[in-house]
Amino acid sequence: MNVDGWIIEESFRNTFSMGFKTTAHLHSERSEYQQIDVYETDSVGRLLLLDGKTMVSNKDEFVYHEVVSHLPYMVTRQCKNVLIIGGGDGGVVREFVKHPDIQRIDLVEIDERVIEVSKKYFPECTSGLSDPRVRVLCQDGFAFIKKAKKEYDIVVIDSTDPVDFASALFTDSFYQDVYNSLTDEGIMMNQTENPFLDEFGVKEIYNNMRKVFPLVRSVTAPMLIYPGVFWTWGFSSKKYGPTDLNPERLNHMAGVERNLQWYNMDWHRGAFSLSNFHKKMIGQE
Amino acid sequence: MNVDGWIIEESFRNTFSMGFKTTAHLHSERSEYQQIDVYETDSVGRLLLLDGKTMVSNKDEFVYHEVVSHLPYMVTRQCKNVLIIGGGDGGVVREFVKHPDIQRIDLVEIDERVIEVSKKYFPECTSGLSDPRVRVLCQDGFAFIKKAKKEYDIVVIDSTDPVDFASALFTDSFYQDVYNSLTDEGIMMNQTENPFLDEFGVKEIYNNMRKVFPLVRSVTAPMLIYPGVFWTWGFSSKKYGPTDLNPERLNHMAGVERNLQWYNMDWHRGAFSLSNFHKKMIGQE
Repeated sequence: MNVDGWIIEESFRNTFSMGFKTTAHLHSERSEYQQIDVYETDSVGRLLLLDGKTMVSNKDEFVYHEVVSHLPYMVTRQCKNVLIIGGGDGGVVREFVKHPDIQRIDLVEIDERVIEVSKKYFPECTSGLSDPRVRVLCQDGFAFIKKAKKEYDIVVIDSTDPVDFASALFTDSFYQDVYNSLTDEGIMMNQTENPFLDEFGVKEIYNNMRKVFPLVRSVTAPMLIYPGVFWTWGFSSKKYGPTDLNPERLNHMAGVERNLQWYNMDWHRGAFSLSNFHKKMIGQE
Repeated sequence: MNVDGWIIEESFRNTFSMGFKTTAHLHSERSEYQQIDVYETDSVGRLLLLDGKTMVSNKDEFVYHEVVSHLPYMVTRQCKNVLIIGGGDGGVVREFVKHPDIQRIDLVEIDERVIEVSKKYFPECTSGLSDPRVRVLCQDGFAFIKKAKKEYDIVVIDSTDPVDFASALFTDSFYQDVYNSLTDEGIMMNQTENPFLDEFGVKEIYNNMRKVFPLVRSVTAPMLIYPGVFWTWGFSSKKYGPTDLNPERLNHMAGVERNLQWYNMDWHRGAFSLSNFHKKMIGQE
């Protein structure tokens, strides 16, 4: 909500809030699916909101986008085809196009208007969308994934919270569809909320993942614009463990990571050493 | 500040805020040094504020207190004497008393009223203060440290932000006094703010530490009640590296960590593998 020139996002049953002072309201529209707003702020730069919830900011978008892309990429042995469900801001695509061995990147975003608004207001995020390997498909990811069989080496679920039409993206039947869409060595990365506030039952989300994938782990990094900042992502793999980096890519990534803002291989190797709290909240032994 | 039943803490030049809805104002007083308040909240339980800034909550105090105690303890080879400057809530002491080889724990807190208020409202934090090895000294830590020479194996700086009387605790001359107070294998742990908001120049703080200590590293963990949550602590050592765990304590800690909420040795070993962002902000090569 917008109060006295501040975007205030309340969470945890309206008992916790984070606020961003705005300097301009750049865009507002009601798309077929949701309310889309873009603000200018002092603290986090340009800020995209969907249905009043903070989605992307200039200040911290690199964290999310680098974690969900380079981390699974470095574990795969073959990475020809990548699918991103959601992620209409283009930030995940921008990271994947840095790897020349990837042949095709499918972005399935239900709301075309999110892509168009991002192109206008977040051009540094959408810069990868013009890469010839990228297919942008404005479709329902939930329906799309059912048709894909052993096609993708990585599937990234870049979704909103598990409410309304996004809640289907956190069910075991959806994870089974993702599993079926992956090659025999495939990996799913998905955003799994903040276990400190734990508004949506993070343990249940991980239990759903564990029903389908033989190897499920979790990683954390800070997302300054998301409720409570302490953000987590799931790593669900058919074969390789989360810190089993592809030895043939070490030289390539050493060159890439010099120009990244968050990810590096040293961080990757330490990132799955979880605190007792993190393990408890996701139900990991 | 208290607005419509919410504690709202603004930071980053008043452009970013975090809020906690309160259900009761349990305590308010003006001590010799600062305004002390205790609130009851739905999101983080009981909440202590000093001069209107969030200090301790039931929900996340374990993170801070376990990080600054067990982490340096596991690196020291001898840990007879420990000094905590600040930390009147007692949470750091509570963690150190879990190690029977520690013979003396000095808590130097300038404001006796913080200790008394904590005893009343945060008894689960102050429970260690009655341990016979603990000396509680209500003195100025800045003056106290000048008199100590090669006395402590660990010094923890559990301070407020570098403003007003606490700003002296972030200078190189203070770090030199801490260095002199440490044994030849001693370690300093200090809270070093949030590099994402970076209100106080975290690189300058680390540069001051590096002027004095041969080995300076940094670790991060989330503090839900602090501005921007992504919190960091410095690890400054005279001899041992941050992941060089004392092999003689592995069995002892395996027993202790089962009952901890944040710290475990696996987390410790991964915690110094920093992101590019973290390294850049603290000026680490």
